[in-house]
Amino acid sequence: MTGGTELGLPEPVLVIGSGLIGTSVALALRRVGIDVLVSDVDPACVKAAVDLGAGRPLAPDDVPAVVVVAVPPSHAGAVLADASRRWPEATLTDVASVKGSVLGEAVAAGADPRRLVGGHPMAGREVSGAAGALANLFDDRLWVVTPLPESGVEHVRRVHRLITISGAMPVEMSMHEHDSAVALVSHTPQVVSSALAAQLIESDEDAVRIAGQGLRDMTRIAASNVRMWSDILAANAGPVAQVLDQVAARLQRTAAALRAVDAGDDAAVDEVTAVLSGGVAGHSRIPGKHGAAPSAYREVLVQIADRPGELGRLFAVAAEADVNLEDVRIEHVMGRPSGLVGLSVRPDAGEELVGALRERGFEVRG
Amino acid sequence: MTGGTELGLPEPVLVIGSGLIGTSVALALRRVGIDVLVSDVDPACVKAAVDLGAGRPLAPDDVPAVVVVAVPPSHAGAVLADASRRWPEATLTDVASVKGSVLGEAVAAGADPRRLVGGHPMAGREVSGAAGALANLFDDRLWVVTPLPESGVEHVRRVHRLITISGAMPVEMSMHEHDSAVALVSHTPQVVSSALAAQLIESDEDAVRIAGQGLRDMTRIAASNVRMWSDILAANAGPVAQVLDQVAARLQRTAAALRAVDAGDDAAVDEVTAVLSGGVAGHSRIPGKHGAAPSAYREVLVQIADRPGELGRLFAVAAEADVNLEDVRIEHVMGRPSGLVGLSVRPDAGEELVGALRERGFEVRG
Repeated sequence: MTGGTELGLPEPVLVIGSGLIGTSVALALRRVGIDVLVSDVDPACVKAAVDLGAGRPLAPDDVPAVVVVAVPPSHAGAVLADASRRWPEATLTDVASVKGSVLGEAVAAGADPRRLVGGHPMAGREVSGAAGALANLFDDRLWVVTPLPESGVEHVRRVHRLITISGAMPVEMSMHEHDSAVALVSHTPQVVSSALAAQLIESDEDAVRIAGQGLRDMTRIAASNVRMWSDILAANAGPVAQVLDQVAARLQRTAAALRAVDAGDDAAVDEVTAVLSGGVAGHSRIPGKHGAAPSAYREVLVQIADRPGELGRLFAVAAEADVNLEDVRIEHVMGRPSGLVGLSVRPDAGEELVGALRERGFEVRG
Repeated sequence: MTGGTELGLPEPVLVIGSGLIGTSVALALRRVGIDVLVSDVDPACVKAAVDLGAGRPLAPDDVPAVVVVAVPPSHAGAVLADASRRWPEATLTDVASVKGSVLGEAVAAGADPRRLVGGHPMAGREVSGAAGALANLFDDRLWVVTPLPESGVEHVRRVHRLITISGAMPVEMSMHEHDSAVALVSHTPQVVSSALAAQLIESDEDAVRIAGQGLRDMTRIAASNVRMWSDILAANAGPVAQVLDQVAARLQRTAAALRAVDAGDDAAVDEVTAVLSGGVAGHSRIPGKHGAAPSAYREVLVQIADRPGELGRLFAVAAEADVNLEDVRIEHVMGRPSGLVGLSVRPDAGEELVGALRERGFEVRG
């Protein structure tokens, strides 16, 4: 075990908030022996975190060198300001998923902007609380760093170190850039997924019965936690409203064009085509595997029995054929005790995989 | 090999249109020895289908007992009417993904409504043309049957037989029910995915860089074929426009509520919460695996090296532990030669799987 000082991170590090993210940060830092203090408004949460090995409880005479605030966005500003007053030398950071409102509230409440550097780890789990915390939650993940104009260089550097030691990769952005970015790539998709899924409430049983993979993919995140998302959306209200209005306008233009087509105006289909083409262009901007440009993989569909071992047998054949799988998805076939597995491979490996699978008795769909 | 007559399907069956779906229907019927005729406006397509074993080319004196029209929706009506005139005893069906406009055009052009029964197989591939055809494309899939009010019982029964012999499961609906259903569960999701993805065109590089799985899932189908989707949307313009307007209105109400929150009206967040809660309720209506109600699986995240055999090793461990995997997804980690694999299992099997994986040296994230 090394200590934080050797790693360029002064100690002790105080993590305020013993939920999923806070406790995971503490556990990640403990992996390399950093002296970590934990605190929470609920003593039971502190005990749970300490029992997991997240560090020791904050004592009255402790003087943290770095404070990580991991409480809900609606409280983070006040907690940052309080920490700033209590420890006038400490570097202050947070993990809230919205940066402008949280850091603005912190400074307005008296936090020292020279020591304040925002952060947002791009990792999470579908569970919450210390019990779901993981020391490796941030490994290989991106962690956005949003310094204020007043942030001191040394404090920014410490937050970078904290992130690297936690296993993540820092990405620096301004608060505004961050909030616009998450409004676009995370918060708006959440609302769109919910709005689309909400359409299903009144629908016929047969309509949802014929739903395919597209609808399933598009409504997966609609099952997310309502309370948590209300808080996030409220904290990033302006940027999200802007993107939502743009998406809504595009949908309305498409609807109007379709009504014109229905009324006999064949040329109106051009507007529909434009939206679809825009979607192809926008989709191509999303980075593929390992940040590389997305490439056209070939998907090999295999029908397998729904019992333990079938997937293992399938992947063992792929491995024997020395074919690397770029992606895997399982399609759920209704009413039958079998599943379809889609294996994405580089186009030049497709024939080899199909041949190997057929040779071993798998039912391959091209 | 049995013949079609023994299976309750009169022969020969003519498939007009030697593309992906038409050739797959022909191949599926050929599996049980049914006499299949193929035709296409392009003789090269007929040759390709015949070479694949899809049947024999239609000859001038052939009299098909059943005609399956598998041409684009914009031509299907005219082709059905032509077939109706040419073979005045034949059962007529089609495979177009929109039913009202296609069957309406067919009848308007002179097709005999008593012998006409619409169909729509819920299967497809990302490729097109006879070369992508598969005899097992429809196995275990749903195939919607839309009789007209005038359709004769015997003709409806023949189409059911055709579907069952092709490996699929028939689901009967009215044309209107079908078109409303696919507008909701297929056509609208396509436009929404495209509209959301189109927002990315002008975005910063860093914004798309921090995109997570949610955005990837929601924009996957935005990469679909533009021409094909323009045709489908135009053919089902009315029902799609109606759902699109409803989704757009929901997004606008959410945007307005967020702007009110931003302006200090805390109570406006209730509207945001209502949309999110509606999404949870709507999502819960989508059937889970094998048509069962969706249940809350536990997802076990495992970090694996990006090389052939790692997935096989992973699934072999799951099989040895006798744990059945309900779903699998691969998360792409940017800039690192590793991947995260999410294994969904029944909650009671989670601990066992985690233990087995850790024992075999896998890095498990809870």
